Amino acid sequence: MNPVQRIAIARGDEPADVLLKGGRIVNVISGEIYDADIALAGDRIAAVGAGYAGLEVVELAGAYVCPGFIDAHVHVESAMIPPAAFGQAVLPRGVTTVVTDPHEIANVLGIDGIQFMLRSGRATPLSLFVSAPSCVPATDLETSGARLEASDLAGLLDEPEVLGLAEVMNYPGVIAGDPSVLAKIERFSGRLIDGHCPGLSGHDLNAYIAAGILSDHECTSLEEAREKLRLGLTIFLREATAARNLRELLPLVNAANERRFCFCTDDRTPEHLLSEGSIDSMIRLSIDEGLDPIVALRLATVNPAEHFGLSDRGRIRPGCRADLVVFPSFDSLDAKLVFAGGTLVARDGEYAGPESGADEQAVLGNTMRIDWPSVDFAIPATGKHACVIGAIDGQLLTARQTIEVIVADGLVVADPSRDLLKLAVIERHHATGNVGLGLVTGVGLKTGALASSVAHDHHNLVVVGADDQSMMTAARAAAEAGGGQAVAVGGTLVELLSLPIAGLMSDRPVDWVAKRSGELRSAAKRLGCGLTEPFMTLSFLALEVIPSLKLTDRGLVDVDSARIVPLFTEEFAEP
Amino acid sequence: MNPVQRIAIARGDEPADVLLKGGRIVNVISGEIYDADIALAGDRIAAVGAGYAGLEVVELAGAYVCPGFIDAHVHVESAMIPPAAFGQAVLPRGVTTVVTDPHEIANVLGIDGIQFMLRSGRATPLSLFVSAPSCVPATDLETSGARLEASDLAGLLDEPEVLGLAEVMNYPGVIAGDPSVLAKIERFSGRLIDGHCPGLSGHDLNAYIAAGILSDHECTSLEEAREKLRLGLTIFLREATAARNLRELLPLVNAANERRFCFCTDDRTPEHLLSEGSIDSMIRLSIDEGLDPIVALRLATVNPAEHFGLSDRGRIRPGCRADLVVFPSFDSLDAKLVFAGGTLVARDGEYAGPESGADEQAVLGNTMRIDWPSVDFAIPATGKHACVIGAIDGQLLTARQTIEVIVADGLVVADPSRDLLKLAVIERHHATGNVGLGLVTGVGLKTGALASSVAHDHHNLVVVGADDQSMMTAARAAAEAGGGQAVAVGGTLVELLSLPIAGLMSDRPVDWVAKRSGELRSAAKRLGCGLTEPFMTLSFLALEVIPSLKLTDRGLVDVDSARIVPLFTEEFAEP
Repeated sequence: MNPVQRIAIARGDEPADVLLKGGRIVNVISGEIYDADIALAGDRIAAVGAGYAGLEVVELAGAYVCPGFIDAHVHVESAMIPPAAFGQAVLPRGVTTVVTDPHEIANVLGIDGIQFMLRSGRATPLSLFVSAPSCVPATDLETSGARLEASDLAGLLDEPEVLGLAEVMNYPGVIAGDPSVLAKIERFSGRLIDGHCPGLSGHDLNAYIAAGILSDHECTSLEEAREKLRLGLTIFLREATAARNLRELLPLVNAANERRFCFCTDDRTPEHLLSEGSIDSMIRLSIDEGLDPIVALRLATVNPAEHFGLSDRGRIRPGCRADLVVFPSFDSLDAKLVFAGGTLVARDGEYAGPESGADEQAVLGNTMRIDWPSVDFAIPATGKHACVIGAIDGQLLTARQTIEVIVADGLVVADPSRDLLKLAVIERHHATGNVGLGLVTGVGLKTGALASSVAHDHHNLVVVGADDQSMMTAARAAAEAGGGQAVAVGGTLVELLSLPIAGLMSDRPVDWVAKRSGELRSAAKRLGCGLTEPFMTLSFLALEVIPSLKLTDRGLVDVDSARIVPLFTEEFAEP
Repeated sequence: MNPVQRIAIARGDEPADVLLKGGRIVNVISGEIYDADIALAGDRIAAVGAGYAGLEVVELAGAYVCPGFIDAHVHVESAMIPPAAFGQAVLPRGVTTVVTDPHEIANVLGIDGIQFMLRSGRATPLSLFVSAPSCVPATDLETSGARLEASDLAGLLDEPEVLGLAEVMNYPGVIAGDPSVLAKIERFSGRLIDGHCPGLSGHDLNAYIAAGILSDHECTSLEEAREKLRLGLTIFLREATAARNLRELLPLVNAANERRFCFCTDDRTPEHLLSEGSIDSMIRLSIDEGLDPIVALRLATVNPAEHFGLSDRGRIRPGCRADLVVFPSFDSLDAKLVFAGGTLVARDGEYAGPESGADEQAVLGNTMRIDWPSVDFAIPATGKHACVIGAIDGQLLTARQTIEVIVADGLVVADPSRDLLKLAVIERHHATGNVGLGLVTGVGLKTGALASSVAHDHHNLVVVGADDQSMMTAARAAAEAGGGQAVAVGGTLVELLSLPIAGLMSDRPVDWVAKRSGELRSAAKRLGCGLTEPFMTLSFLALEVIPSLKLTDRGLVDVDSARIVPLFTEEFAEP
């Protein structure tokens, strides 16, 4: 849009493209609510006031108007849909801007994956900004699809949507002055550098911040958040599907410090997005908990805009993007109308924007590259007592148990009667033939197997099962779908959710994915699985940066010592 | 400073370069005051907390420590000293960062003048950021030393100290969509674009903001500031020597909107700087007026830092610049110690930093280029009644009077008995020989003349006097000094303040300049001048963008019609 025309509309010499008439402005800048019309010019706000005309007039009849919501930190891949579909899911909730860390797809496809997210983001009216993933791969104890050093990330600096460096999870590396991670921070100096430092305090926290880190979204206690706030970190209050920290941290927010807080969803499953929503659910919860409604809206609008230097949004100002949410009441805060860049994109909770372009998955190809002849789930019984991973419902942490195994023909067999299952992680990026094998308890399957190509952070193919045939059926089905999640019994595939985009995301809408996810979960439960979210727990059994015992394609990982360890605690002597 | 070493100091593995021990942190982020030590690493803060050691330990004994003050908008030239000397003047006041608009020197020397300011700024521990002057020249009714279009300004974008575009004073041009001014805004899009729109309201204000303007420092009433705040402008509260708006506007500042306000001094004379100080005087006044002291400090620290995107200052955070002010009490807020970039630069109100480098004036040369043979103050009496400029004490505005002149030998002569003096504006940039001639009342000289090469905005040589000889003596003296301000009687020079740097600034320290300014003023008053600030009023008699009647080197300017007008209201008919 030509600024000359926008200025002419603001002067009142030309009619606005769209005039929002009769609304009540929630002014997050002045902290006031008052009646005013909003004149739009193309994708921008031209004017706020009275006495304007419009080519199109939208009567708001006293409804509130506030800036579009901003999610300060989200992994879109967790919703199992790419950005274009994600836009259709969150725009009806009033979310018009997200800052995403494409950490998951970067572990599969490196820069190509990040570029895919950028392109997909450009195909939705949702503004998708990207932070460059700082920790790919998580460690050297796994085989990821890509490795991103500072020099690889530097190319992203030219992309207009790339704001900075995403959550620097390798905080031990930062504190120790590790050259590789400091090089990444240095390369993004002057940009936004987001943090991730659960539980860090005192001198270590000072060291982490002194390196140039500007935010954290991992606070779980008031005390932790207070110390980080004092030391100057912007606090992203998180309400993810698994990690829900908002209620605990809200008491810290007051008039003197509220500008230092933002909302973020981090990781939400498709079902969570559908049922509760996105940032809108956090505003709602905050108001329920007693936060001043205008302050709650600030945490969702101008605060993240200012943290990220996005001066063109987050407030209703002439010249800013026309990202606007119209809602009739603070009681429910349901968006009646949502405008993104001047276009009506949602009405009464339904997406009403343009259809996104053609599905882009083809350009990524099939990322499931497995050397099948090498895949064998047989575990030679070289010992009597195995180190077994103890899955814990609802947690990323695992326990460590020592259990006597059952052996048949010299091979370890699963024993569902004791809830002892076989676990495999099949390398799927480079067809190396790597297969990590182990045992797990706590999953509860009586029969059959589950397989998933979503397995943090490397996203190799993780398979758990009561017998080898079921495991192979599930694994093959997930792989043949180009990635996905499968439930199988013996030679029969029971359920399959295809995730053909990098093995992480579906090419279908969020409601379809949510429904299939539910069906997968039900199928797993019918087979005896007692976990609340079977596939989510499964996906973290392979994450070797969270204690205590995990399995990667390289083998069993003792997280505390950061070493590959043998499956058996006492090896049999050679005969 | 190597970040590895800063991190090591923060970890506590190495001693800090300097440890500020036993202070009370005024935390403008959390809004709290508490005891903590501050460990410095080179020019940065490494850590805030306890348990640190230092190579050098500074005992603060319970004194307060806050971030260094930031002046959001100042014309350094108004202090008649270049940035290096300005640093020596304001650092002892706790001001460690200024954003300056080198509008005055740019009118004399264009980009070369701006580059001089940048170089001089690099020779002081004061952080001097620059906004690119947007209105050089002010209009085409004058001859300035330079003309800066968008393409000229673009080169400044590469200078690390250049933050954006300075106050866009041509608001009629913005509102009308003038291509030249919009091109400048477009060129600085994504940078900070500061405004200047006294009294603008309603649709015109919307149009001005819609063009991309982000701040204003010209508010004089609560109502004006409230409207601008609601429309999203950051409000710079100004307390200049001439325009003092702080007390009037403070009642608007509250907990819900305080982050939208900054302090600025705009234009302060050397004497004002010496007597009251800089931003420190605004904090003091605000606290006296009842503003919460921590909020007052925010307006002087983190608010301007965030407005200008200076994330490395304005708060006490590990990794930020060690710009710190130590003060014993909120009662007087006198800085006991001031650190800039980790270096102690002031103690007990005295500059204690490194001496700035060699005087740079030589590189600019003498900017007083006058075609003396063309300079003649004779005014042929082609009419009986002249349009006379009415100087008003303490105002930039002038009145317009019609007065019958006295004629001798066919020439108009001054008539001090009726307070009617001759006024001349001698073009001094290109030796064009242009001399604008007129008459002025309200100055009050009984005898003698005043001359000044400081004359907004073109800074031609303006001369007022009771007779031609005095005028020539004063003008020649100011010119021969390479620019300056002079008082003369007949053939005798009475007082001279040399301003050899672009005819605007002295090469001496601020206290010397202040003393000489006082002596000049006294001399003018001894000659009968009744103005409070004779040379300040003189310098605005030639500013053709402020009503009503002004004189430039092109002639008498009717500001309302923006036209050159004849001196006489009714010309004599040819004989």
